Parts: sequence; structure tokens; C-alpha cells
Amino acid sequence: MATIGFIGVGLAIGLAALGSGLGQGIASRGALEGMARQPEASGDIRTTLLLALAFMEALTLFSFVIAILMWTKL
Amino acid sequence: MATIGFIGVGLAIGLAALGSGLGQGIASRGALEGMARQPEASGDIRTTLLLALAFMEALTLFSFVIAILMWTKL
Amino acid sequence: MATIGFIGVGLAIGLAALGSGLGQGIASRGALEGMARQPEASGDIRTTLLLALAFMEALTLFSFVIAILMWTKL
Amino acid sequence: MATIGFIGVGLAIGLAALGSGLGQGIASRGALEGMARQPEASGDIRTTLLLALAFMEALTLFSFVIAILMWTKL
Amino acid sequence: MATIGFIGVGLAIGLAALGSGLGQGIASRGALEGMARQPEASGDIRTTLLLALAFMEALTLFSFVIAILMWTKL
Amino acid sequence: MATIGFIGVGLAIGLAALGSGLGQGIASRGALEGMARQPEASGDIRTTLLLALAFMEALTLFSFVIAILMWTKL
Amino acid sequence: MATIGFIGVGLAIGLAALGSGLGQGIASRGALEGMARQPEASGDIRTTLLLALAFMEALTLFSFVIAILMWTKL
Amino acid sequence: MATIGFIGVGLAIGLAALGSGLGQGIASRGALEGMARQPEASGDIRTTLLLALAFMEALTLFSFVIAILMWTKL
Amino acid sequence: MATIGFIGVGLAIGLAALGSGLGQGIASRGALEGMARQPEASGDIRTTLLLALAFMEALTLFSFVIAILMWTKL
Amino acid sequence: MATIGFIGVGLAIGLAALGSGLGQGIASRGALEGMARQPEASGDIRTTLLLALAFMEALTLFSFVIAILMWTKL
Amino acid sequence: MATIGFIGVGLAIGLAALGSGLGQGIASRGALEGMARQPEASGDIRTTLLLALAFMEALTLFSFVIAILMWTKL
Amino acid sequence: MATIGFIGVGLAIGLAALGSGLGQGIASRGALEGMARQPEASGDIRTTLLLALAFMEALTLFSFVIAILMWTKL
Amino acid sequence: MATIGFIGVGLAIGLAALGSGLGQGIASRGALEGMARQPEASGDIRTTLLLALAFMEALTLFSFVIAILMWTKL
Amino acid sequence: MATIGFIGVGLAIGLAALGSGLGQGIASRGALEGMARQPEASGDIRTTLLLALAFMEALTLFSFVIAILMWTKL
Repeated sequence: MATIGFIGVGLAIGLAALGSGLGQGIASRGALEGMARQPEASGDIRTTLLLALAFMEALTLFSFVIAILMWTKL
Repeated sequence: MATIGFIGVGLAIGLAALGSGLGQGIASRGALEGMARQPEASGDIRTTLLLALAFMEALTLFSFVIAILMWTKL
Repeated sequence: MATIGFIGVGLAIGLAALGSGLGQGIASRGALEGMARQPEASGDIRTTLLLALAFMEALTLFSFVIAILMWTKL
Repeated sequence: MATIGFIGVGLAIGLAALGSGLGQGIASRGALEGMARQPEASGDIRTTLLLALAFMEALTLFSFVIAILMWTKL
Repeated sequence: MATIGFIGVGLAIGLAALGSGLGQGIASRGALEGMARQPEASGDIRTTLLLALAFMEALTLFSFVIAILMWTKL
Repeated sequence: MATIGFIGVGLAIGLAALGSGLGQGIASRGALEGMARQPEASGDIRTTLLLALAFMEALTLFSFVIAILMWTKL
Repeated sequence: MATIGFIGVGLAIGLAALGSGLGQGIASRGALEGMARQPEASGDIRTTLLLALAFMEALTLFSFVIAILMWTKL
Repeated sequence: MATIGFIGVGLAIGLAALGSGLGQGIASRGALEGMARQPEASGDIRTTLLLALAFMEALTLFSFVIAILMWTKL
Repeated sequence: MATIGFIGVGLAIGLAALGSGLGQGIASRGALEGMARQPEASGDIRTTLLLALAFMEALTLFSFVIAILMWTKL
Repeated sequence: MATIGFIGVGLAIGLAALGSGLGQGIASRGALEGMARQPEASGDIRTTLLLALAFMEALTLFSFVIAILMWTKL
Repeated sequence: MATIGFIGVGLAIGLAALGSGLGQGIASRGALEGMARQPEASGDIRTTLLLALAFMEALTLFSFVIAILMWTKL
Repeated sequence: MATIGFIGVGLAIGLAALGSGLGQGIASRGALEGMARQPEASGDIRTTLLLALAFMEALTLFSFVIAILMWTKL
Repeated sequence: MATIGFIGVGLAIGLAALGSGLGQGIASRGALEGMARQPEASGDIRTTLLLALAFMEALTLFSFVIAILMWTKL
Repeated sequence: MATIGFIGVGLAIGLAALGSGLGQGIASRGALEGMARQPEASGDIRTTLLLALAFMEALTLFSFVIAILMWTKL
């Protein structure tokens, strides 16, 4: 019964990656459509996209830290 | 049976990251489409986006704090 | 079996952050698209956005309080 | 097994915050887009938004009360 | 095992607040967009919005009553 | 184990309020947008809205009756 | 363990009210938007709406009957 | 443990009413919007709507029959 | 524990009615909107709608047969 | 505990009917709207619709076969 | 407890039919609307639709094979 | 209890077919609508559709392999 | 009880195929609609589509590897 | 009972691939539609798409690492 903790680790990293993945996809779509509509604003859009992607990547990193912490106690 | 608490930790950080990730993605898309439509309002939009992203990042940080607190008691 | 309470704590903070995160994302998108459409109303929109974000942040704070209260009894 | 009640407390405050958060986000988006479309109606819209946000905040407060009541019996 | 009743109380108030919150958000968005499109109909719209919000608030109050009743028997 | 019945009571009133709340929100939005588009049909629309809201309120009342009946047997 | 039947009663009346509530909300929205677009067809639309609402109310009544029948056997 | 059958009865009638309710709402909305757009086709539309509502009502009646049959064996 | 089979019967008829109900609602909406847009094609549309409704009704009848078969073995 | 197999039979036929019902509804709606937009292509559309409906009906028949096979082993 | 395998068989065939049914419905709708918009491309569209329907039917057949294989081991 | 593995086999093949089915339906709809809008690009579109369908079919084949592997160990 | 691990293998490959399938379908639809709108950009679009499909196929391959690894330990 | 950990591994890699797959699909669709609308911005769009796909692929790699780590402890 000690291995029931694996489910918690899996939910932590899985749900976080699910949300971040969807969010990054939605953000990227907006950026890519915007670049097609206004090619000369390309640089500006790509910089902001990277910034937003980094924010979302950070969410999964928080979960990654928690998952590693939990793993050490399994 | 002591490890059932891992599920709680996983739900706390996982669901929070899921919601924040989706929210940040939706907000970023609005910002990136807006920048493509009105490139000269770029600076103003990016500042407001950062502000909103910070608010949403804070939600995950609250959960991060709770997850760490719970972890210490596992 | 005492640790089943962790799930309750995780649901409290996780679901609240999920809802607030999505809500803030939706609100922010409206604000950012509005700023792109009417740059001169920027100040007014940002003030109202901050107000709405604060209301939604408060929802997660209520859950944070409950989660801390429950944590003390784990 | 006494701690299974934590789940009930967590669901009460978590689901309520989830619904109120989404509702406030939807309402705020409508208000912010409206302000961008009709800047001169700004004051009127913000007053009504505050009223609606207060109604939704109240829903979470009802759940907060129930959660505190349940907490005293844990 | 007596505390499994907490889940019922939590579902009663939580699901009701979830539904009312979403409903109030949808109704408010309609009202706020309507006020932006037709500012001179503002008073009429706000009165009807309050009426509808009161109806939805009542749904949560019914659940609140049931939750209190159940709480007395926990 | 006798308190598992609480979950049934909670589901009865909670799901009903969830559905009625969403339904009333959708109906109200239609009414409020209609009033903004055709202010002179305001009276007619509000009467019909009240009628529809009453129908939906009745659904929750049916569940309320069942919940009270079940509560007497807990 | 005899009280597990409460969940069945709760699901019967709760899910039915959920579906009917959403359905009535969708139908009402169509009617109210239609009345705003074509005020002179108001009487015709309201009659048909009442008819449809009655059909949907009947669905919950069927469930109400089943719930009462089950309640007598609890 | 004999009362676990109540859940089956509840699911049978509840899910059926949920689906029929949503379906009738969607169909009615189409009919009511159609009547507003083409008032002179009103009679034709209402006849077809009644026919469709009857088909959907029948689905719940099938479930009602099954629920009654099951109830006799509880 | 013999009555757990009731849940299977309930799922069979309930899920089938849920899907058929939604499907019939979607099909009917298309038909009713089509009749409003092109009243002279009314007869043709109604015939095809009846055909489609019959196909979907058949799906629930298959489930009805299975449910009755299972009921005889409860 | 032998009757837990009923749930499997119920899921097999129920989920299949759910998916086929929704699919047939979506396909029918496209056909009925198409017939309203282009009445002279009516025959061609109806033939193709029947073909598609038959394909989807077959999916439920596969599940029906499996359900009957399983039923013989209950 | 040997009959718990029925649930696996039911999920295999049920979920596959659910997905294929929805997919075929979505594909058919596109084909039927396309035939109404461009009647002279009818033959080409129908051929491609049949091809796509066959691909999706194959998915359920894979599941059918697995379900039969599992059934032989029940 | 050995047959609980059937659920895993069922989920593997069922979920994969669900996703592939929906994906193929969405892709096919795009192709069929595109062929109706630009009949002369028909050949090109059909080739690309087949390629995409093959990619998605492969996903279910991966799951099929896993399901067969698991089946040998049941 | 050793076979409960089958569920994990099934979830790993099933959920991954579900997500990749939906993602590939959405991407393919965009590509196919784009080819119909701009036939001369066909080659460029098909190359990029293949690239994206390969990225998504890789996600399922990661899960495939994990599933095989787990299978060796069943 | 030791194999319950397989579920955690499956959820970790499965949910992550689900989210990344959907996100990559949404992002790719935006890119492919953009390339069709503005073929001369093709190079720029493809570069940004690759960047976004890599970010999303990374999310699944984080989960892959966690899954491998957990696997070593099964």
C-alpha cells in the first residue's frame, strides 16, 4: 500500500503538464495568427510569446519540484 | 496507508497549475492578437499582460506553499 | 488513514486556484483585447481589470485560509 | 477515518470558489469589452460590475461559513 | 466513519454555488454588454439583472438551508 | 456508515441548483441582450423572463422537497 | 449501509433537474431573443415556449415520481 | 447492501431525463428562433417541434419503464 | 451485493437515452431552422427528419432490449 | 459479486449508443440544413445521409453483439 | 470477482464506438454541407467520405477484435 | 481479482480509438469542406488527408500492440 | 491484485493516444482548409504539417516506451 | 498491491502527453492557417512554430523523467 503515493506524484506532474501544454498551445496560436496578419510586428510578438511561454513553463517546474520532493519520500 | 496524503499534495499543485496554465494561455492569446491588431499599443499591452500573468502565477504559488506545508507532514 | 485529510486540503486550494486562474485569464483577455481596440481607454480598463483580479484573488485567499485551518488539524 | 470530513470541507469551499471565479471572470470580460466599445458609459458599467461581483463573492462567503462550521466539528 | 456526511454537506453547498456563480456570471455579461451597446436602457437592464441575480442567489440559499439542516445532524 | 445518506441529499439539491442556476443565467442573458437591442419590448421580455425563471426555480423546489423528505429519514 | 439508497434518489432527481434546467434555459434564451427581434410575434412565441417548458417540466416530474417511489422503500 | 440497486434506478431515469431535457431545449430554441425569423411558417414549425418533442419524451418513457421494472425487484 | 447489477441496467438505458436525446435535439434544431429559412422545402425536410429520428430512436431500443434481457437475470 | 459484470454490459451498449446518437444527430443536422439551403440537391444529400447513418448504426450493432455475447456468460 | 473483466470488455468496445461515432458524425456533417454548397462536386465528396468512414470504422473493428479476444478468456 | 487487468486492456484500446476517431473526424471534415470550396484542389487534399489519417491510425495501432501484449499476460 | 498494474499501462498509452489523436486532427484540419484556400502554398503547408504530426507522434512514442518498460515488470 | 504505483506512472506520462498533444495541435493549426493566409511570412511562422512545439515537447519530457524515476522504484 506504500505505492499509492505514486498516484499523487503522477497527478502533480501530469495535471500541471496538461494545463501548461494547453495554455502554451492557445497562446502560440494567437501569436502565430497574429504574425500572419501583421508580419512586420513579428519580432515584438515573438518576444512576448517567449515571455508568456516561460511563465507557463514555470508552472510545470513548480510541480516538477514538488514531484521530486515527493519522490524522495516514496 | 500513510502515503495516501501524496494524492492531496498532487491535487493541490496539479489543479492549481492546470488552472493557471489555461488562464495564462487565454490571457496571452488576447494580448498577442491585440499586439498584431494595434502594434503601436504594444508597450501598454505587454505591461498589462505581465501584471495579469503575475496575478495568475501567484495562485500557483499559494498552492505551492500549501503543498510544501503538507509535504513536511507526510 | 489519518492522511486522507490531505486530499481535502488539496481539493480546497486546487479547485479554487483552478477557478480563479481561469476566471482571471478570461477577464484579462477581455481587457487586453479592449486595450488594443481602444488604446485611449487604457487607463480606465486597467484600473477595472485590477479591481476584478483582486476580487478573484480573494476567492483563492478564502480557500487558502480554510486550507491553513485544516492543515493545523491534520 | 475521522479525517474523511476534510474532503467535504475542501469540496464546499473549492467548488464554490471555482464557480464564483469563472462567473466573475465571464462578467468582468463583458464589462471590460463594453468599456472599450463605449468608453463614456464607463462609470455606469463599473458600478454594475461591482454589484455583480459582490453577488458572486457572496456565494463563496456562504460556502466559507459552511466550511468554518464544519471545521469546528472535525 | 461518521464524518462521511461532511462530503454530502460540501457537495450540496459547493455544487449550488458553482451553478449559481456561473449563471450569475453569464447573466451579468449579457447585461454589461447590453449597457455598453445601449447606454440609455441602462436603468431598465440593471433592474432586470438584479431580479435575475436574486433568483439565482435564492438557489444557493435553498442549498444553504439544507446544508445547515444536515450540519445539525452530523 | 449511516451518514452516507448525506451524499444523496447533497447531490439532490446540489445538482438541481447547478442546472437551474446555469439555465437561469442563460435565459437571463438572452433577455438582457434582447432588452438592449429592442428597449421598447422591455415589458414583454421581462414578463416572459419571470415566467421562465419561475419554471426553473420550480425544478429546484422539487429537489428541495425530496431533500427535506430524505433528511427526515437520516 | 442501508442509506446508500439515498444516493440513488439524489441522482434521480438531481440529474433530471440539471438537464431540464439547462434545457429550459436554452429554450427560453431562444424565445427571449426572438421576441426582441420580432416583437409582433410575441404571443405566438410565448405560447410555444410554455408548451416546450411544460414538456421539459414533465421530465423532472417523471423523476420526481420515481424518487418518491424509491423513498417509500428506503 | 441491498439498497445499492437504488443507484441504478436513479442513473436510469436521471441520465435519460438529462439527455432528453437538453435535447428538447436545443430543439425548442431552434423552433423559437425560426418562428421569430419567419412568423408565417409558425404553424408548420410548431407541428414539427411537437413531433420531435414527442420522440424525445419517448426516450425518457423507455427509461421510466425500466426504472419501474427495476423498482419492483428492489 | 446481488443488486449491483442494477447499476449496469441503469447505465445501459440511461447513457443510450442521453445520447439519443442530445442527437435528436441537434437534428431537430437543424430541421426547424431549415424550415424557417426555406418554408417551401418543409415537406422534404420533415420526411428526412423523421427518418433520422427513427434511426436514433432505434439506438435506444437496442439498449432497451439489452436492459430487459439483463433485468430477467437480476 | 457475480453481477458486477452487468456494469460492463451496460457500459458497452450505453457508451456506443451515446456516441452513435450524437454522431447521427450532428450528421443529420448538416443534411437538414443543407437541404434547406439547396433544395434541388435534396435527393443526393438524403442518399449520402442514409449511408452515413448506416455506418454509425453499425457501430452500435458491434457493441450489441458484444453485449449479447457477454450476457450469455453472466 | 471474476466478472470484473466484463467492465474492461465494455470499456474497450464502448469507448471506441463513442469516438468513432462522433468522428463519423463530424465528418459526415462536413460532407453533407459541402454537397449542399457545391452539388457538382458531389461524387468526389462522397468517395472521400466513404474512405474516411472506412478508416474510422476500422478503429472500432480493432477494439472489436480485442473485445472478442478478451471475451474468450472471461 | 486477476481479471482486473481487463480494465487496463480496455482503457488502452478504448481511449486510443476514442481520440483517433475524433481526430480523424475533425481532419476529414476540414478536407471535405475544403473540397467543396475548391473542387480543383481535390486530388491534393485527398492525398494529404490519407497521409494524416494514416498517422492517426498508427496511434491506435501502437495501443493495439500494447493491448495484445497485455492480453498474453492476462 | 498484481494485475492492477494493467490499468496504469492502459492509461499511459490510452491517454497519450487520445491527446495526440485529437491534436493531429486539429492540426490536419487547419492544413487541409489552408490548402483549399491557397492551393499554391500546398507544398509548404504539407511539409509543415508533416513536421507537426511527427512532433505529436513522438509524444505517443514516449508513452509507448514507458508502457513497454512497465509491461516488462508486470 | 505493490503494482498500484503503475497507475501513477501511467497518469504522469498519459496526462502530460494528452495536454502537450492538444496544445501542439492547436498551435500547429494556427500556424498552418496563417501560412495559407500569408504565404510570404512562411519562414518566420515555421521558426516560431518549432520554438513553441519544442517548449511543449519539454513538458512531456519533464513527465518522462518523473515516470522513469518512479519506474526505478516500482
